[in-house]
Amino acid sequence: MTATDPTRALSLVDQQLDASLDRLFALLRIPSISTQPDHAEDCRRTARWLSDDLAGLGFESAVRETPGLPIVVAHHRQTGGAQIGSARRPHVLFYGHYDVQPVDPIELWTSGPFDPVMQDGPDGERWIVARGASDDKGQVMTFIEALRAIRAADGTYPLDVTVLLEGEEESGGPSLRPFLDANRDELRADIALVCDTNMLDGGVPAITTMLRGLVGEEITISCADRDLHSGLYGNAARNPLHLLVDVLASLRDETGRITLPGFYDGVEDPPASVRAEWAHLGDDAALLGPVGLSIPAGEQGYTALEQTWARPTCEINGITGGYGGEGFKTVLPAKAQAKVSFRMVAGQDPDKVRAAFRAHVRARIPSDCSVDFHEHGGSRASALPIDGAELKAALGALTAEWGKEAAVIGSGGSIPVVKDLQEALGMDSLLIGFAKSDDRIHSPNEKYDLTSFHKGTRSWVRVLYALAE
Amino acid sequence: MTATDPTRALSLVDQQLDASLDRLFALLRIPSISTQPDHAEDCRRTARWLSDDLAGLGFESAVRETPGLPIVVAHHRQTGGAQIGSARRPHVLFYGHYDVQPVDPIELWTSGPFDPVMQDGPDGERWIVARGASDDKGQVMTFIEALRAIRAADGTYPLDVTVLLEGEEESGGPSLRPFLDANRDELRADIALVCDTNMLDGGVPAITTMLRGLVGEEITISCADRDLHSGLYGNAARNPLHLLVDVLASLRDETGRITLPGFYDGVEDPPASVRAEWAHLGDDAALLGPVGLSIPAGEQGYTALEQTWARPTCEINGITGGYGGEGFKTVLPAKAQAKVSFRMVAGQDPDKVRAAFRAHVRARIPSDCSVDFHEHGGSRASALPIDGAELKAALGALTAEWGKEAAVIGSGGSIPVVKDLQEALGMDSLLIGFAKSDDRIHSPNEKYDLTSFHKGTRSWVRVLYALAE
Repeated sequence: MTATDPTRALSLVDQQLDASLDRLFALLRIPSISTQPDHAEDCRRTARWLSDDLAGLGFESAVRETPGLPIVVAHHRQTGGAQIGSARRPHVLFYGHYDVQPVDPIELWTSGPFDPVMQDGPDGERWIVARGASDDKGQVMTFIEALRAIRAADGTYPLDVTVLLEGEEESGGPSLRPFLDANRDELRADIALVCDTNMLDGGVPAITTMLRGLVGEEITISCADRDLHSGLYGNAARNPLHLLVDVLASLRDETGRITLPGFYDGVEDPPASVRAEWAHLGDDAALLGPVGLSIPAGEQGYTALEQTWARPTCEINGITGGYGGEGFKTVLPAKAQAKVSFRMVAGQDPDKVRAAFRAHVRARIPSDCSVDFHEHGGSRASALPIDGAELKAALGALTAEWGKEAAVIGSGGSIPVVKDLQEALGMDSLLIGFAKSDDRIHSPNEKYDLTSFHKGTRSWVRVLYALAE
Repeated sequence: MTATDPTRALSLVDQQLDASLDRLFALLRIPSISTQPDHAEDCRRTARWLSDDLAGLGFESAVRETPGLPIVVAHHRQTGGAQIGSARRPHVLFYGHYDVQPVDPIELWTSGPFDPVMQDGPDGERWIVARGASDDKGQVMTFIEALRAIRAADGTYPLDVTVLLEGEEESGGPSLRPFLDANRDELRADIALVCDTNMLDGGVPAITTMLRGLVGEEITISCADRDLHSGLYGNAARNPLHLLVDVLASLRDETGRITLPGFYDGVEDPPASVRAEWAHLGDDAALLGPVGLSIPAGEQGYTALEQTWARPTCEINGITGGYGGEGFKTVLPAKAQAKVSFRMVAGQDPDKVRAAFRAHVRARIPSDCSVDFHEHGGSRASALPIDGAELKAALGALTAEWGKEAAVIGSGGSIPVVKDLQEALGMDSLLIGFAKSDDRIHSPNEKYDLTSFHKGTRSWVRVLYALAE
């Protein structure tokens, strides 16, 4: 058996599955919600838990402070001896995030968001149900459990490994990029492995090479200096909720196109060959049916897959203003607020989009009212090479594990770290994830298939040995 | 001194002012918020307090149950003897409401909403600050304190008086009209006196003869069967917040006119003579300046006064949907909700407006999404006679008290009871109130001028004696 034969480690993954689940559940029990300051200590506890676990796997591991939430960095690099005279062996940087989304609306959860349980899915699947089960704690643990099995099999690892786990991914926090810039030499590797993406439905493994960026904005419109009675002031006094709906409704035209000047500058359609390939990967019904919808909502002339993988979007993520309680209150509120996000594709400049949005809003606010803007993160889209040796090796490993040809796909989500790794460390990423489109990430009853966790762990074993060859 | 000379009672009002304020403060301390079920017992306590106070003034008084919140009914009618052979003396029905609006946003109050305090106004005025200080507990107590002074002066009252105080005015509750229908003979009087309206700025007393009606609607739009990740589903899956802003923004055109088909059917402009009179009663700046605004927001071609007194309006009173907490959440919510109210003027049918609104919304909801409607009250506008003997007598009494010619005006607010009294009891109302446009009713730091309370009480003394002549 050579040092790159995964057989022994794979059987250990199978034997240790229950113990692996116990460790995942322990991690899921910590409510590491990064957007809510009262959970900061929970985030720190999660970082310590992961750092300790990696230290137990022979890594030099530490919880590294930042101006925001800490970052876990763990290294296992071969030193001298065995490698003298031989070519330097490969070095991979694994990235994941330990923070999770808020849990509201809490009343829609069938079990506690931080009290993980196993549930039976409709078609015989077994589900791990908890906030973060899929995004991203479950995915992170597929990699760590793979390391555990390899070490148990071989006593070491077939290549150098650095693990980087951040805590501000869900909050668009600012700490990661400066940390990468400040620790270039320490963190640079041959390639990054990022586990925060989906497989395709039907158990088809996939590597994501197109990722959208994100621009998050929060606007607060202020009119009168107090709440007013809508009977005594209605029509005559400006209602910030009317301004808000006018501002937001005018962001898209009747064809679903975003109306901001210059929004589509530099945006190109995917090559016809890619669009043709995607047409086979799932139609609109496949995306919308599972969530109870049937009519595509967005830009005319594009399939749902194209819209979510290759087109920029504008979504309203929240509106608050006036009386939302029981019963009715005939009030003209003094203020109204909205949270809006834009998904960026290759060619778009987040700063230009943000500026165009703010100009669009300001142009609609009368001079006796005012608007405040609060920025919530901004990142460019990423396009990754689709011809590297590592990509080929990883595709082979995934195909071997899942018994289905691994696909190269795009993703609607934003994984800012990919751009940061390219810009700060000059590294490309392999985006390999085992989540499914029905995992309800960011929603109540988030789940991760037991199969995703088990075969995901096995997949990393195969990928790591393959990259070592 | 005849039984219709107010001199003695007026001086008693002045002497008893401090005691009158103590009683008002005690009433203001009870948080009788009718839209919030957890304050139902507070509302009942308020009703008992008022009923007991009226009993102490020689009234047959009782707290009368309804399917909702109770109604206080108190009678003082002369029996036989003294009036044998003489003409039946006048009988007035006084109406007020003991319930108040919710207090949020609570953080903007400078003192407890139910912990009444005296404050100094900017121009030497003394203010009574508390929720309900003006709307309507303060106004109700001007009438009760007037009764107290008259009884102390004469041992009785110069005319028959029935007092009716309801507890569902702020919640658009359904209990009053059936109660009036069920007690016609008991409650019918020559005329109703309603104290729930404003004076004009500058201490000009006013009797309101035009009142708008109200249609309240709450809509909930539902799309996907769960909250979704805006990166994975954005554009492709329908966002109820986008539907909501489209529905609401399309309710008004760029000139401020409401776009619902038939909305303006039967709506007529006030006579040129009335518009000319109103032009002297206060310009746009007079209405908007005090609340920090300068640009009229509504229908083009009408002054702010005309818009609030004589034009129908549509206002968004609240929007809730998606993530409103700290930070950011890239969610496509499953549901979004809005509370919308329309002010009706003479000629409009609330049921037709409600139906037109619901059709407007339904027409904009795709077939794979749904909308639910919840009704929050509906009432027609009221026009009252401007040539009755009682109106003339009351105008004279107000002019005598305030030393300024009393005006006949309109009001933007809705006082459904006026229509109910017309329809159920065939009675017209005299709308006499002492509130001011800067009283912040329905807003934080609601106040009532000490002058409104003191001279308002004196005004009722004069009006009651005048109506007895």
